[in-house]
Amino acid sequence: MLRASESAHPLDQALVLEAGKQAGHWRGSTHPFYRNMVGPYGGVTAAQMLQAVMLDERRIGDPMSLTLHYAAPVADGPFQILTQIKRSNRSTQHWAIDMAQQQGDETVVVMTGMLISARRRETWSMQELAMPQVAQPETLERFHRPQAPDWVNSFDMRYVQGDMQVRGKAQDQASLDRALERFGLPEVNDSKSLLWFRDEPLRQLDFPGLASLCDIFFPRLLLRRPVWVPAGTISMTVYFHCSQQEVDAIGSDYLLGLADSSRFHRGFFDQQAYLWSRQGALIASTQQMVYYKL
Amino acid sequence: MLRASESAHPLDQALVLEAGKQAGHWRGSTHPFYRNMVGPYGGVTAAQMLQAVMLDERRIGDPMSLTLHYAAPVADGPFQILTQIKRSNRSTQHWAIDMAQQQGDETVVVMTGMLISARRRETWSMQELAMPQVAQPETLERFHRPQAPDWVNSFDMRYVQGDMQVRGKAQDQASLDRALERFGLPEVNDSKSLLWFRDEPLRQLDFPGLASLCDIFFPRLLLRRPVWVPAGTISMTVYFHCSQQEVDAIGSDYLLGLADSSRFHRGFFDQQAYLWSRQGALIASTQQMVYYKL
Repeated sequence: MLRASESAHPLDQALVLEAGKQAGHWRGSTHPFYRNMVGPYGGVTAAQMLQAVMLDERRIGDPMSLTLHYAAPVADGPFQILTQIKRSNRSTQHWAIDMAQQQGDETVVVMTGMLISARRRETWSMQELAMPQVAQPETLERFHRPQAPDWVNSFDMRYVQGDMQVRGKAQDQASLDRALERFGLPEVNDSKSLLWFRDEPLRQLDFPGLASLCDIFFPRLLLRRPVWVPAGTISMTVYFHCSQQEVDAIGSDYLLGLADSSRFHRGFFDQQAYLWSRQGALIASTQQMVYYKL
Repeated sequence: MLRASESAHPLDQALVLEAGKQAGHWRGSTHPFYRNMVGPYGGVTAAQMLQAVMLDERRIGDPMSLTLHYAAPVADGPFQILTQIKRSNRSTQHWAIDMAQQQGDETVVVMTGMLISARRRETWSMQELAMPQVAQPETLERFHRPQAPDWVNSFDMRYVQGDMQVRGKAQDQASLDRALERFGLPEVNDSKSLLWFRDEPLRQLDFPGLASLCDIFFPRLLLRRPVWVPAGTISMTVYFHCSQQEVDAIGSDYLLGLADSSRFHRGFFDQQAYLWSRQGALIASTQQMVYYKL
């Protein structure tokens, strides 16, 4: 069974997975549009992992908690996704998700993941974290990085605060020191970004698309020290605070995102982000641990 | 090989795991001291999962990112832990960890987990999230809940803000409505707790102990609606921002914890917490998704 996509949107093309003979076996491929510095944009790989569960007829409820570990660089080309239901009850399901690739003679696990899907119920509800009051996206300028990979400009991003101002690039301590001497450290008190964003071309929001959007907050390190160094997400968790219906209702409207960090420490830093609908509903919160070489 | 413990501390007794014949196979048991309402205190189960990797001679580096999914209630008695190294390179290792129990005729996966362990390096470091300035723990009163299970009082907790003030208990909507009518909703603007805490009796901090301490922040729902209802952690992530040496240096001193929540929505809410050493180093940040029935 091939889940073909007629959509012109590159994310829908990337989300095409072919079901294997056994339940939970899927084949897919990286998409050239999302090619990044090392392997594809991590948000799309996250979306592909989640898609393997979204397409599974055994699934109960909506995605609720997703954690992914980026174990090795994803090479351009085909991959396999294997999912396993570890535990299932009437309203909740626990999944393990692995992505593997044939790289030369070796089968490499490039990503491991766990997902909880759950049926939500009507019950007492309350949102504690209010959406920051900011100008509407239509009044703000769109952020462009002409020299960035294609996928970067497939998001319409409108920064209120903390856009990416990268100057220079370093592969080793000596070149980093030179760049910092030349450009200096920015005068910032935090690593906060606040921005509206959505897919461009427009795309109806769904859970894989939302997982992908959770990864658009560039490494916070670059706000503190605006020099590219080797760095990459190693662990990412997404909590979905919404049901399928609530995701559907967002359509292709802007989301507001707030990202910051708490500690950069000896090779790893965390970052977290919150995502609200334009109406102010918190629809996802997400955390990462990010590796940095220098 | 039996990793016996001479320590009188119940956590050290709970952390005794017996190695099986194959690498990554371990046997352990729940500890009666940590018995809770449904199954044991989740922090100790988390510590036991982590312990299976800490004891493994194949481990590289220190725990860095740990995610656990509480898949089914843990029954009193023995369990098995199975770990697998999914990917290993010179400085980073990706683990899968499952806990299973024989419950009647069925082998039940009660917990699934993933861990990244990593070697840290000397590099540019910076802490963004400063420790809140509060009174020293010695000047604050110790929190006591005489009717609570034993394990609750095995932590010396000194609240600056947001202690647990539970009144009444409900199993269904009618009894919840009655309790809320009788006691009313508290006048709070957030679900924040700020407290000093440590093990009592004292215990030298280690990574399993730190994982356990990441779960002492009671369900934030109880600050918003101080009536016990069926609720429990379903997903928990811990980011460790410290090396073994840095953990060792803390000894048995107090940690400061700050916990809050962002959204309670249709059966699940998130909560997050930060843990600082008394000297102000952020040593862990942690997130949970928590199920609530009413």
